[in-house]
Amino acid sequence: MTTFADKPWEHLEALIEAGRVKDLLDFFESLSPQETALVLSRLDEGDRTTLLTLLSPNDAADLIEDISDEQAALILGELPASDAGRIADELPSEQVVDVLGELDTSEAEEILQSMPADSAEVARTSLNYPKDTAGNLMIADFLAYQEDTSIGEVNRDLQDNQEVYRTYNIQYIYVVDSKNCLVGVMRIHDLLFSSHTSLLRDVMIRNPYRVSADAALDEVSEEFSQHSLLALPVVDSDNALLGIVLPLAVEEAKSKRTVKHFLWLSGIIGGEEFRSMPLVKRSGRRLSWLTLNIVLNIIAASVIALYQDTLAAAITLAVFLPMVSDMSGCSGNQAVAVSLRELALGLLRPGEILRVAFKESTLGLINGIVLGILLGFVAYLWKGNLFLSLVIGAALAGNTLVAVTFGGMLPLVLKKLKIDPALVSSPLLTTVTDMCGFFLVLSLASAVLPRISG
Amino acid sequence: MTTFADKPWEHLEALIEAGRVKDLLDFFESLSPQETALVLSRLDEGDRTTLLTLLSPNDAADLIEDISDEQAALILGELPASDAGRIADELPSEQVVDVLGELDTSEAEEILQSMPADSAEVARTSLNYPKDTAGNLMIADFLAYQEDTSIGEVNRDLQDNQEVYRTYNIQYIYVVDSKNCLVGVMRIHDLLFSSHTSLLRDVMIRNPYRVSADAALDEVSEEFSQHSLLALPVVDSDNALLGIVLPLAVEEAKSKRTVKHFLWLSGIIGGEEFRSMPLVKRSGRRLSWLTLNIVLNIIAASVIALYQDTLAAAITLAVFLPMVSDMSGCSGNQAVAVSLRELALGLLRPGEILRVAFKESTLGLINGIVLGILLGFVAYLWKGNLFLSLVIGAALAGNTLVAVTFGGMLPLVLKKLKIDPALVSSPLLTTVTDMCGFFLVLSLASAVLPRISG
Repeated sequence: MTTFADKPWEHLEALIEAGRVKDLLDFFESLSPQETALVLSRLDEGDRTTLLTLLSPNDAADLIEDISDEQAALILGELPASDAGRIADELPSEQVVDVLGELDTSEAEEILQSMPADSAEVARTSLNYPKDTAGNLMIADFLAYQEDTSIGEVNRDLQDNQEVYRTYNIQYIYVVDSKNCLVGVMRIHDLLFSSHTSLLRDVMIRNPYRVSADAALDEVSEEFSQHSLLALPVVDSDNALLGIVLPLAVEEAKSKRTVKHFLWLSGIIGGEEFRSMPLVKRSGRRLSWLTLNIVLNIIAASVIALYQDTLAAAITLAVFLPMVSDMSGCSGNQAVAVSLRELALGLLRPGEILRVAFKESTLGLINGIVLGILLGFVAYLWKGNLFLSLVIGAALAGNTLVAVTFGGMLPLVLKKLKIDPALVSSPLLTTVTDMCGFFLVLSLASAVLPRISG
Repeated sequence: MTTFADKPWEHLEALIEAGRVKDLLDFFESLSPQETALVLSRLDEGDRTTLLTLLSPNDAADLIEDISDEQAALILGELPASDAGRIADELPSEQVVDVLGELDTSEAEEILQSMPADSAEVARTSLNYPKDTAGNLMIADFLAYQEDTSIGEVNRDLQDNQEVYRTYNIQYIYVVDSKNCLVGVMRIHDLLFSSHTSLLRDVMIRNPYRVSADAALDEVSEEFSQHSLLALPVVDSDNALLGIVLPLAVEEAKSKRTVKHFLWLSGIIGGEEFRSMPLVKRSGRRLSWLTLNIVLNIIAASVIALYQDTLAAAITLAVFLPMVSDMSGCSGNQAVAVSLRELALGLLRPGEILRVAFKESTLGLINGIVLGILLGFVAYLWKGNLFLSLVIGAALAGNTLVAVTFGGMLPLVLKKLKIDPALVSSPLLTTVTDMCGFFLVLSLASAVLPRISG
């Protein structure tokens, strides 16, 4: 990387143009996964397609393995389905599911159809379960034996297939009956300590922990933290063994969810945006969110329109209007964040709206009074009008109380309504605190208008 | 849980008061980790202390294992250091580090001093490394043997200590020379396939991948994704083996960091807030952030004060001032979020400010024009004044361009200045877009004032 550190993708473009496969492989060999992600994102679509068809499917898959699922989906989506299928077939099975899960169902199905039937089938099984369920998170890389298998036979199978199993993360072997129903488990280490003639049925741990394929992410995570397991078998409604979930997959899924919420909070709602995407797509996605925001803003600002005369008579108020609404928005967002976290950690049950209302209104009262005194004091220093500073201080105090109480309760109410609170809490909150802030400042001011006008 | 599902902590309080240890254990046995976290958070401090001193340190540690590190730190911090030390000693070593890492250094040291010297030493070694470094993330539960040990001896050691090792997540055995320097590694499964008389020196893989104890979280994560390892050995500057890092620990640390950024973005900056914390503490922490915000708001609003006469002459503008500034704040935050994500994924290098400026200004131009036309149209529908709607539309278009370009560049600039962009991007952005929005609306309006006043 050192020799062409400045713009390594220009070097890459030259290699692609010349079709020098060996040099391309050496080039990528010298890059870290992050650097690979970077240079791939900087190629134009044509060069990227040429590159991935120049390389063998296996080498192309090595590149795809280094990058995020969103970027991988983007890149595979650009290729003809047959090429994408050949590359996908070389990816670890769990990554196939993650990457295809980022594509539209029809795009994913096209790629699946150009994969060999058996590996497509494995991926399809997982993709048929909704995102963030055990069935979607599970992988097919596990070992299961019939209950009448002997330890010696298991050891022989391990030895015969060591090249295949080496790529698995094997912690347990699972024991199934003749109908493929899960009946037992053994830690792989315990094979070292068991007599070769024993049958699995006699040395296995019976009735192992398991999760249903429909189990939600939080349920699976709970199961792991409750029993400190290194893997969890996934079964269907008939108790047939379908796959296993690893703790790392659960942690990664939770991490992805947090990132999604983080992006939502910032108004990036249509999935990850990369600056290498076409401008029109980026612009359109952002606008879809912003135009909704215009509507909310118009609703909030209409309160000001109602009080235009008051405002004209005491124009100083115009300086404080955005301050009161912004400050309360910040206070309310703090309460929203605490509720979202407490819900995520299980420290708050969705039904406990009254508890939150009490906890937040007491805090809102204190913070409202402190902030109200501060801003009222600033107003007094500036204009020397006691009534003006009382109006501003009281409005900020009252609006803080409303914002904090409403903000704390909002995620619980949305959850009851089965709306994801991370998506809509913030814009809803801002609209309400803006309206209420404008109303408080202007209605209080109109009550004492002769004292503050001019 | 079903019989006292409504307020299980009241049942718990009764058991604590009666000092019924056996019933307490049965009670907690019936709870999931999330329910344990919930009931512990709802006890008052006195009851919680009584509970944890009633139970044996081992049983108390079982409860602590079920809850988040932040909550565990809070609870251990309430106890006398000697009791906290006895409980901490029963926790898995990596959790001791995570939990004590959440406390003040002096509080943590007090607890360490009441722990047995050897386990305190293990925890101290990790705690001496800064958060989110390999040294801080590593655990001491690994197996290392001298290079002249035979496979037979290793097997015997595994067998003799199986009860201890059973709690480890063992994937590899490490091989060290007489100075404890890391010289090799073997996959534990390969013990099944090696002759008992071979020496480790002859069958081990030489020069294994490793990380330095100072390596940052992203570096460790990069190493894992580059080599698909199940554990990474951590060495000091002399290559002496100190511990191992597991992929799960890395993923959890990344997840914690994302949560912290999420909280920061919402103005929760002093660490997690739980509603079970004392009101004064919660209020004070939130205020420390809000008072900074007041200052930023005053700076932004001072622009309005400069143009008071313009505003008084065309009071309709007051309705549009918060709309233009809010909308641009939203647009800018989208650009901030995309930059933060691209930086995190390595798709953007901190030096590429010009690239971002170009990518965002083109997008800002398009979105600015679209939003400007929309809002201008709304203004025309409402007031029927072409000049007014041109002022509003042009101000929003210009401010969107500024907000998006500035928002996209801001995280890179802050990174160059070694300030964490997740902490300050959003308030800085809002201040700039507010000021610029107010300025654009009011200065454009004053240029055509006779046409829009009245």
